[in-house]
Amino acid sequence: MKQTITVGLLGLGTVGSGVVEILHDHKERIQHKTGCDVTIKAALVNDPSKKRELPTSSTLLTDRHEDITNDPDIDVIVEVMGGIDHTFTILMEAIKNGKHIVTANKDLIAKHGAELFEACQENKCDLFYEASVAGGIPVIRSIMDGLSSDRITKMMGIVNGTTNYIMTKMAQEGVDFDSVLKEAQDLGFAEADPTADVDGLDAARKMTILSILGFSMPYQLEDVDVKGIRGISLEDIKYAEELGYRIKLIGIAENDESGVSVSVEPTLLPIHHPLSSVNDEYNAVYVYGDAIGETMFYGPGAGKLPTATAVVSDLIAVLKNIRLGTTGTAYVQPQFPTQVKAKQQQWTKKYLRLQVQDQPGTLNEMTHIFAEYGISFDQIIQRSSEKEDQREIMMVTHQVSEEDFEKARQDLEGLASVKSIDSIFRVEGGN
Amino acid sequence: MKQTITVGLLGLGTVGSGVVEILHDHKERIQHKTGCDVTIKAALVNDPSKKRELPTSSTLLTDRHEDITNDPDIDVIVEVMGGIDHTFTILMEAIKNGKHIVTANKDLIAKHGAELFEACQENKCDLFYEASVAGGIPVIRSIMDGLSSDRITKMMGIVNGTTNYIMTKMAQEGVDFDSVLKEAQDLGFAEADPTADVDGLDAARKMTILSILGFSMPYQLEDVDVKGIRGISLEDIKYAEELGYRIKLIGIAENDESGVSVSVEPTLLPIHHPLSSVNDEYNAVYVYGDAIGETMFYGPGAGKLPTATAVVSDLIAVLKNIRLGTTGTAYVQPQFPTQVKAKQQQWTKKYLRLQVQDQPGTLNEMTHIFAEYGISFDQIIQRSSEKEDQREIMMVTHQVSEEDFEKARQDLEGLASVKSIDSIFRVEGGN
Repeated sequence: MKQTITVGLLGLGTVGSGVVEILHDHKERIQHKTGCDVTIKAALVNDPSKKRELPTSSTLLTDRHEDITNDPDIDVIVEVMGGIDHTFTILMEAIKNGKHIVTANKDLIAKHGAELFEACQENKCDLFYEASVAGGIPVIRSIMDGLSSDRITKMMGIVNGTTNYIMTKMAQEGVDFDSVLKEAQDLGFAEADPTADVDGLDAARKMTILSILGFSMPYQLEDVDVKGIRGISLEDIKYAEELGYRIKLIGIAENDESGVSVSVEPTLLPIHHPLSSVNDEYNAVYVYGDAIGETMFYGPGAGKLPTATAVVSDLIAVLKNIRLGTTGTAYVQPQFPTQVKAKQQQWTKKYLRLQVQDQPGTLNEMTHIFAEYGISFDQIIQRSSEKEDQREIMMVTHQVSEEDFEKARQDLEGLASVKSIDSIFRVEGGN
Repeated sequence: MKQTITVGLLGLGTVGSGVVEILHDHKERIQHKTGCDVTIKAALVNDPSKKRELPTSSTLLTDRHEDITNDPDIDVIVEVMGGIDHTFTILMEAIKNGKHIVTANKDLIAKHGAELFEACQENKCDLFYEASVAGGIPVIRSIMDGLSSDRITKMMGIVNGTTNYIMTKMAQEGVDFDSVLKEAQDLGFAEADPTADVDGLDAARKMTILSILGFSMPYQLEDVDVKGIRGISLEDIKYAEELGYRIKLIGIAENDESGVSVSVEPTLLPIHHPLSSVNDEYNAVYVYGDAIGETMFYGPGAGKLPTATAVVSDLIAVLKNIRLGTTGTAYVQPQFPTQVKAKQQQWTKKYLRLQVQDQPGTLNEMTHIFAEYGISFDQIIQRSSEKEDQREIMMVTHQVSEEDFEKARQDLEGLASVKSIDSIFRVEGGN
């Protein structure tokens, strides 16, 4: 049995140096758990000549990935450099050379997961990617193993820390979106280009990965409906609170007899729902199963050490498999073909905020439209508006199909008495 | 490779029939995931002649455990009958016959876990016990695999559904302990003899199992400090709320350089702490790790199908190991010897409620005692009492050693102006 497992790092940035730190600090623990030592032989970096605290003085720093993917000594490749297509090419090369892969790269897995898994199976290699969703929370493993006997019907996730941080600050401190974003960028919580986070793409990638795994179906990123948080105003947050809800950016994946729908959008959740208490940069994934009922996994969704914890836990799983001679057996092909539910068939509750003319008959005109499409209401609030001759109305509907709701929305926009529809959000839970 | 795995059930009560149900309903899913079929060949029951919906018509019902433990066809034994010493004897016999074990029995694992694991290692058998702690929540697996790279420093658990249900009802509906207990018994949430739940023993067993695993140390049930929920009054719940806290029965396991302390006791938690929102019969385990920071696992702590989900997920893990030829390799001996922290060395915050004489100098006498032992306060509330010449005082201290606090408590009791000390509870979090 091998006594030493040799690792090559692709990337030595924040997460990469976290991996080095954990492997160093927990050397004895890992030795005890796996019965072998881990050595980092080489690390791919942009500039090998740059001074840095090396993994160890004997670790080769290189800017040529072949030094790692072609090195016959290296057993496992830890990919923490990010990127999609170029990284994919490198990893496919590595897998052909028999390297096992641990990656934290959600973009890569969401786009090329299936091809990578296939290559791994052919070459009896392991591929683990716990860190790609919800950072340090072991949610991939929980779905794969802990809930393996159950049929998962729905998953709701707060899977993007940046947007959750922004929405928490907006709600708790009453500061508007642009100011909080600026602050988050200054603190390093948000990227200089926040698009992927703020517009929901990052969350969509993670929901794709969860859906493939949870529903055992090769769901595509392109089939996720994505709406980001730019349109959320402080007014909406305040009114939601008054109606008994918090607004969060929620990824929702649902699986029923008519297919699977996956979306990422600002969603009103009842204040007492466990996800409503997930604040700041924390992540959580709420899973519904036929047998389990409801369960939630909560923790840090990003950060150097939490993410590195997930990477090294995956690495430990690979080490065990290498020693037991069972690499390449963890992956299970999706059981079902993808069945995307048509948008029109989706039923949800909706929150609307609109400005209307303050005159007799306005509300009646509106309720007439809703009645026509069979849409009924859970709650309605009417308020005076900033403009004297207008009123602001907030409504929460009961379940309505997207198709009917869209028709009603168009009819509403056609009313002279409706000045503007300011916000429309999905509502989960409640009555 | 084996195409069919044969299971023997010890027990066919609530959880046992849940296991049968899941194996039946999710037959194809399990077949897909593991590549083999599962057959239940025999079940141990008290009265084989009793009419019941059998697992299948070909399943042998027997009241002789030897029919199962000695049957060479049976690969895996699923123990869902409960009991400690007698069950232990049966399982040891089964392990000697090479049977793999899946159990939901916390009492057994807390008391005889080490011996069972040793026997399993000798006989290359698997032993899984996910359902023994927190029902359907895959917390054992998360600690064992998902957080395997981290050093766990503290775990806080709401691990008893009955007491959490009682405390939730008390807090939300203002009904006293006895009435809620009665209602819970009528609804089947509480046993006719509620002692093990209400007095904290059940939670203590689960915390023992978590501590052994999380701290890699053979911690003993006898070393857990246990205090149940009988002493909690509606007044305490109300005052705690006013001070910004909820009272929950919390199992706390801590590991620092001076050793490990494990306790189960009513504890005040800040209202915004994620555990404070864990209501009704739900369970949750909050884990602190050096690298991960804080993470929480939430879900149903009991119930037929949630518990059976955990059992069948364990069974799937055994199936995979049988097919891969890697049974008996999952268990890792504890890395460290047990080091129980002396009670006096433990530091916590405390909540006190006392009745005092309404006369000049009373508060001064009290604060003098606290000052003597270096105990300072986070919050104090004084109220009028039901008795006209008395006042009620609620205090929350800063961190204090158990030793100093006990001395102060004794001195307080010696004061003529202190009529009674009604409640003392631990406080977690806050400043």
